[in-house]
Amino acid sequence: MTFTERLRAVQRTQGSLLCVGLDTDPGKLPAHLGSADNPVVEFNKRLIDATHDLVCAYKINLAFYEALGEAGWSTIQHTLEHIPKEIITIADGKRADIGNSSERYATSLFTGMGFSSCTVAPYMGSDSLEPFFKHEERGVFVLAVTSNAGARDFQYLKVRGKPLYEHVIARVRKWNIHENCGLVVGATRPKELQRIRSLAPTMPLLIPGIGAQGGSVRSAVRHGCDKQGDLAVINASRSILYASSGADFTSAARSTAVTLRDEINSYRDVYF
Amino acid sequence: MTFTERLRAVQRTQGSLLCVGLDTDPGKLPAHLGSADNPVVEFNKRLIDATHDLVCAYKINLAFYEALGEAGWSTIQHTLEHIPKEIITIADGKRADIGNSSERYATSLFTGMGFSSCTVAPYMGSDSLEPFFKHEERGVFVLAVTSNAGARDFQYLKVRGKPLYEHVIARVRKWNIHENCGLVVGATRPKELQRIRSLAPTMPLLIPGIGAQGGSVRSAVRHGCDKQGDLAVINASRSILYASSGADFTSAARSTAVTLRDEINSYRDVYF
Repeated sequence: MTFTERLRAVQRTQGSLLCVGLDTDPGKLPAHLGSADNPVVEFNKRLIDATHDLVCAYKINLAFYEALGEAGWSTIQHTLEHIPKEIITIADGKRADIGNSSERYATSLFTGMGFSSCTVAPYMGSDSLEPFFKHEERGVFVLAVTSNAGARDFQYLKVRGKPLYEHVIARVRKWNIHENCGLVVGATRPKELQRIRSLAPTMPLLIPGIGAQGGSVRSAVRHGCDKQGDLAVINASRSILYASSGADFTSAARSTAVTLRDEINSYRDVYF
Repeated sequence: MTFTERLRAVQRTQGSLLCVGLDTDPGKLPAHLGSADNPVVEFNKRLIDATHDLVCAYKINLAFYEALGEAGWSTIQHTLEHIPKEIITIADGKRADIGNSSERYATSLFTGMGFSSCTVAPYMGSDSLEPFFKHEERGVFVLAVTSNAGARDFQYLKVRGKPLYEHVIARVRKWNIHENCGLVVGATRPKELQRIRSLAPTMPLLIPGIGAQGGSVRSAVRHGCDKQGDLAVINASRSILYASSGADFTSAARSTAVTLRDEINSYRDVYF
C-alpha cells in the first residue's frame, strides 16, 4: 500500500482528518506533572491517551525535542512508542542537505525512530530529497507555502509568471513515483490552498496554521481535501495541548479535539 | 566584536581559512578505536588534537550526530568541549521553521550547546531566520548556492532576470544589521562564487565542496575571500577525516590539513 493510500485508509477508519501537533513546551505543562520522571513524556502520553481515537496523525515538532538536550531523543522514542501503530506519525523537522547527509536524516527518522513520515525543505533540490523519497512506504511532505509571514519573501517570487511554490509543486509531482510525496500548505493561505489542490489533486497536504495561527478550518477542508474528501491532514497544536493548564488538561484537550474533528467532518459533509 | 570581525581575527591569529567538517561516520572509524567508550568522541578528540592549530573553524554536520540516536547530543557536547574556545564552531543543520520553532532551534544550538554559528535554509523567509539573527554574537550562514547537483532545481530559477539565489542574498544583506550573517556557497560553483562575493563584499562565506566533491581550492580562495583576503571559510571533511583508515589516521589527517591550509595560503599570497 502506498503512503497516500495508507493515509486515506487511516483517515477513513478513524473518521478524522485531524492531526495533533505535539509541540510540547516544558514551560507550559500543568504543574501537577512536575513530579514525573520525564514530565514531557508524561504529558504526551496522557495527551495521546485522551485523543488517539480522534486523529489520523500526530506531528512531532523536532525543534521542541532538540531543545530538551540529551533527553530529547528518548523523549521522542517514548512518545512514539505510545502512539497506536495504525496512526500516522510526522517528524516535523524541515530537513534537507546534500545526499550523504540527507541519507542520515532519513535513516534516523524513518529507520531509527520509526516515524511514518516527515517534512523537508525544497531549496537544495532533488538529490537532497531523494534519500527521503526512496523510503517508499514513508511519507515526505515538502514545504510549498508556509503559514508564516516570511513565506512572502521567496515562496511568492514569480518565475516565468508563476510563484516559486508552483515550481516546487511541479517538481514534487515528478518526484512522486512511489506516491509517497505530500506538500505543506499553511491554512492561513486559503487561495493558494485551492490552487495547490488543483495542481496536485491526489497528493496528501499537511495543513498547519489553524488555531493559534488563525487559519480557517472551513477552507482547510473545502480546498485541502482531494475529490473524495480525504488527504488533507489538518494540524492543530497549541489550541489542543494547552486547552487547559490545570489538572483537567486531558479532558479539555479531548473536548477541543472532538469539537475540531467534528467541525472538520461537518465541512466534509457539506463539500464532499 | 561582531561575528564577522571575530571570524577575521581568528583567521589571522590562526593563519588559516581552513574549516574541518566533523562529518564523523561510525562505520569509517579506524578499527583500533572500537574499544573506546564512545568511538566517535574519541575520533573527534584526536582529530581536533591533530588539527586545531591549522583551522579557523570546525563544522559539525548535525545529520551525522542525529543518526547516533540517544548518544548524539552528548557526542556533540563532548566534541565541542574539546575544541579550543577561540576557534569558530558551526552547527551545520540547515534549520528554519516558523518563529516559535526556530526560537527553539536557535536556543538549543547557541545557548544549550554553545555553537558560535550555524547554517539555515532560506525558503520560509525572514521570520523563520530572525530567531537566529537576534543572537548578535553568533554567526548565521544562509544557504545561497549549494554544492550539490539539485541546486539547479530552484536556486537558479530566474526571478526578474536574476537567479533566485541573488534574491536570497539581497534579503540577507538587509537582515544583516548585527553583521552576523553569512552565506553558504559551494566550491563547485566558481562563477557564482565570484558573483556572490561582488554582491556581498563584506560577508563571511562558508564554502563546502572541495575535496570529495571536487571544487577548486584556487577559486574558493580567489573568489571567496573579501578584499583583505579573509572571510572565506573553506571546508573539507572526508578528505581530512579519512586520510588514513589505520592507526596513523591523526598524522595523515594533520598532513592533509597542513597541505590544504598551505595551498589556501599560497593562493592568498598570489591574489591578495
